[in-house]
Amino acid sequence: MRRKTFARMNCSIARALELVGEWWTMLIMREAFLGTRRFRDFQRNLGIARNILSARLKKLVARGVLTREAAPGGGRRLEYRLTEKGRAFFPVLMALMQWGDQWIAGPDRAPVKVVERASGREIAQVAVRAADGRVLQPAEVAMVAGPGAGPAMRARLASRAARPVAVRARNHGAARDGG
Amino acid sequence: MRRKTFARMNCSIARALELVGEWWTMLIMREAFLGTRRFRDFQRNLGIARNILSARLKKLVARGVLTREAAPGGGRRLEYRLTEKGRAFFPVLMALMQWGDQWIAGPDRAPVKVVERASGREIAQVAVRAADGRVLQPAEVAMVAGPGAGPAMRARLASRAARPVAVRARNHGAARDGG
Repeated sequence: MRRKTFARMNCSIARALELVGEWWTMLIMREAFLGTRRFRDFQRNLGIARNILSARLKKLVARGVLTREAAPGGGRRLEYRLTEKGRAFFPVLMALMQWGDQWIAGPDRAPVKVVERASGREIAQVAVRAADGRVLQPAEVAMVAGPGAGPAMRARLASRAARPVAVRARNHGAARDGG
Repeated sequence: MRRKTFARMNCSIARALELVGEWWTMLIMREAFLGTRRFRDFQRNLGIARNILSARLKKLVARGVLTREAAPGGGRRLEYRLTEKGRAFFPVLMALMQWGDQWIAGPDRAPVKVVERASGREIAQVAVRAADGRVLQPAEVAMVAGPGAGPAMRARLASRAARPVAVRARNHGAARDGG
């Protein structure tokens, strides 16, 4: 019921959540990025019930995020691997992890550090950037109707999109958390 | 039950999901970034039941993502506003939206376009980057134990972290989606 509503919403966040927003799914994606490929390894690493894991993997395969294919070496073992669509999810997971590190665990207690393999240096904070690479704050962007916007979305964005940004900029100095 | 498990996991993705991974919460965050502040506007824009909206907002306020305060102008009206912790969630939402645009809606059917306010130019794709700004692919990073890693996490990362990257790099040319 709730999922149907999300899938029908004309919003890419809602539609993405319809696919990856179920309990466990993002942690299954995390495992896939950590290199987990076998059903029993997902199960062991996550401590997830077989039936839930099975349903979640099935959906990710059906929707093209993972493939399920024979493991290299010719046995009958099957492996789950990220597709290009699945690998493209990497910035979402990293942004979520960094936010959790910074605002929940606390920056000095991050359980995992992500480093560039070649240099060993920690990666940058995932950020919203302008086309030329400058980091942009929420107040510096505006939402405008895209090519897939329906009439309701167009009306809403036309009447509202510019407002929050202006209001936020005006209150910036007074905001108690100042950032 | 499931939430408790997530909160106890020593993983910032799991802990972030414990806060923002419930149905509706990310869409409430989307609304907040679009400038929605009043309970009834959240309700109308999302088509969400009052009791669910109320519970979700309460949690976001309790956990420091939103504040609930008197609207400017001196009336009794209350407004929900993003805190610094809430605004820091922006890259997660933008990454999720761009992924949905590209892989679910299709790039030519994005309902919303996000532009830099000053230039009107569309923002860049949210990406994982090295400290010097280069875009990094999943195969170019490794996960290593952070300061908050427990013994189990350390053992796991020591034995596994390097592997998936190496394996992925080796199979790179053969992967059917090649990216």
